[in-house]
Amino acid sequence: MLKIFITGGTLDKEYRQTDGELILSKTHVNEILGQGNCTLETGLEIIMLKDSLFMEEQDRKIILEKCLGCPEKQIVITHGTDTMAETARVLGPVIKDKTVVLVGAMIPFTFRDSDAVFNLGFALAAVQILKPGIYIAMNARIFAWDNVRKNKESGEFEKIRS
Amino acid sequence: MLKIFITGGTLDKEYRQTDGELILSKTHVNEILGQGNCTLETGLEIIMLKDSLFMEEQDRKIILEKCLGCPEKQIVITHGTDTMAETARVLGPVIKDKTVVLVGAMIPFTFRDSDAVFNLGFALAAVQILKPGIYIAMNARIFAWDNVRKNKESGEFEKIRS
Amino acid sequence: MLKIFITGGTLDKEYRQTDGELILSKTHVNEILGQGNCTLETGLEIIMLKDSLFMEEQDRKIILEKCLGCPEKQIVITHGTDTMAETARVLGPVIKDKTVVLVGAMIPFTFRDSDAVFNLGFALAAVQILKPGIYIAMNARIFAWDNVRKNKESGEFEKIRS
Amino acid sequence: MLKIFITGGTLDKEYRQTDGELILSKTHVNEILGQGNCTLETGLEIIMLKDSLFMEEQDRKIILEKCLGCPEKQIVITHGTDTMAETARVLGPVIKDKTVVLVGAMIPFTFRDSDAVFNLGFALAAVQILKPGIYIAMNARIFAWDNVRKNKESGEFEKIRS
Repeated sequence: MLKIFITGGTLDKEYRQTDGELILSKTHVNEILGQGNCTLETGLEIIMLKDSLFMEEQDRKIILEKCLGCPEKQIVITHGTDTMAETARVLGPVIKDKTVVLVGAMIPFTFRDSDAVFNLGFALAAVQILKPGIYIAMNARIFAWDNVRKNKESGEFEKIRS
Repeated sequence: MLKIFITGGTLDKEYRQTDGELILSKTHVNEILGQGNCTLETGLEIIMLKDSLFMEEQDRKIILEKCLGCPEKQIVITHGTDTMAETARVLGPVIKDKTVVLVGAMIPFTFRDSDAVFNLGFALAAVQILKPGIYIAMNARIFAWDNVRKNKESGEFEKIRS
Repeated sequence: MLKIFITGGTLDKEYRQTDGELILSKTHVNEILGQGNCTLETGLEIIMLKDSLFMEEQDRKIILEKCLGCPEKQIVITHGTDTMAETARVLGPVIKDKTVVLVGAMIPFTFRDSDAVFNLGFALAAVQILKPGIYIAMNARIFAWDNVRKNKESGEFEKIRS
Repeated sequence: MLKIFITGGTLDKEYRQTDGELILSKTHVNEILGQGNCTLETGLEIIMLKDSLFMEEQDRKIILEKCLGCPEKQIVITHGTDTMAETARVLGPVIKDKTVVLVGAMIPFTFRDSDAVFNLGFALAAVQILKPGIYIAMNARIFAWDNVRKNKESGEFEKIRS
């Protein structure tokens, strides 16, 4: 079986009518799996619902523990894009026998033109095929955990060294 | 570079207001790549725009020739789901040094609840990682060309033998 | 209270995955009212679910009877656009003390770019304000029942005489 | 001809990828009119793009001047919902020979489940039929300017006195 850990980020943000804020209150990943007619057996667990700008070292430790502690060998982690590479660098040196793919979105699923559905589909293929290791799957590309950063200006992920 | 061959199928069907028919007149794959913030270099080519129920042996030969003739080693083919497995069985025994992933949709992209975006994201990851061979990517799963069929009742793809 | 009679038409068409046909199996009008945060009290009733090309004189008689028989003075009828003007001409000479607004869509609600939500919002305002009579509400315009036709080429409703 | 004045509000908010903020940078009303297959002649003008919580007396004066100064007798004003009733109370006592309908949205147009399309369709019918006066069109209902408030808890508009 394949595990999907939810940690929050732009992907799951939704509009709160009372004050017009974008908030994290639940995950939409099950809805996305349904839209993709997913017949793959997946276990979904919300670890936290945080904007990744506000993630602290303690949060990344919890994510690491969860990855180490679960029986599944294939793990997708939804994560805010701003510090996704940072979390990958916490998991990378420690997890050796599992395939972990971090994925997120630049535009929340609740928006018409969101990249969330495309990205989650992409990550679910990647995690099933890639050999053990920690990866980031964004912009229809796969990045190794130790050679990736988010370009703050373009909003796109890129290799640090080619 | 990665090649995307368009052959038609449900994925690209759209509504024609004049007579209420669902027709194939162009592809929406570029729109989907844009939605996914795809920074991967891809070449798109429309081979045909056919409902796969009306594909004939000659059509599958053309698709095979296109796959053999292009310089790219990674090829995604959008295809109607009804005879997708049949086309895979034409490509499978012949193409040996390329990774070819066939993908489609159960609901056209033009519908709100389409699986097209999820599926294309999934296929684009698969084609970049899988070793050479012919595959079908549907229902968030990857199938080898010689062990896959569409279950007509459920509309889902499944292995012929487990 | 305001009555909404459903008769079918493009507005409610949805995709049937098993054979790729556009079919009428239920109405989406409640969903549209929810999307519009409608706090207006409305009663919804499905009279039939027909493509208006296949409506016969008997069907229009049933619609007329329903309009005459219900206690509400404000009635919205969802209807296929092809013979909407014809049904209006059956209702027009008979119903004198009620406001009846016929409305439909050129693209089904289930499509991303449907006009159904806009049109139903438009019709719901029209029926609350117009004086008794029979009207067609399409293309953001209101037409009297005895001076309206659908232009088959443009797909737009227009006056017969200006 | 019919005038549509844009003043901002939730309706036109969109997601800015660089910082995840909801911002006002342009209007989507033309896109909505296109979706509604609107053949009505309309003139669109952006007066301002403000969250109505930040509108000041000076802003409402500008809106009033615009309504008085334009040649059109039918005016739709898109406006944030939080102080929509306040702006209506500035226009109400002064404008006597024009029909002015204020409309907005609880969820921005850029979200999948927005009420913007429904509401704008509703307002466009209302403005064409209502006799001169100032109105708010929300929740599929029409309110007179001097008997309407937004219920902060429910987010719905309601009469002050029944």
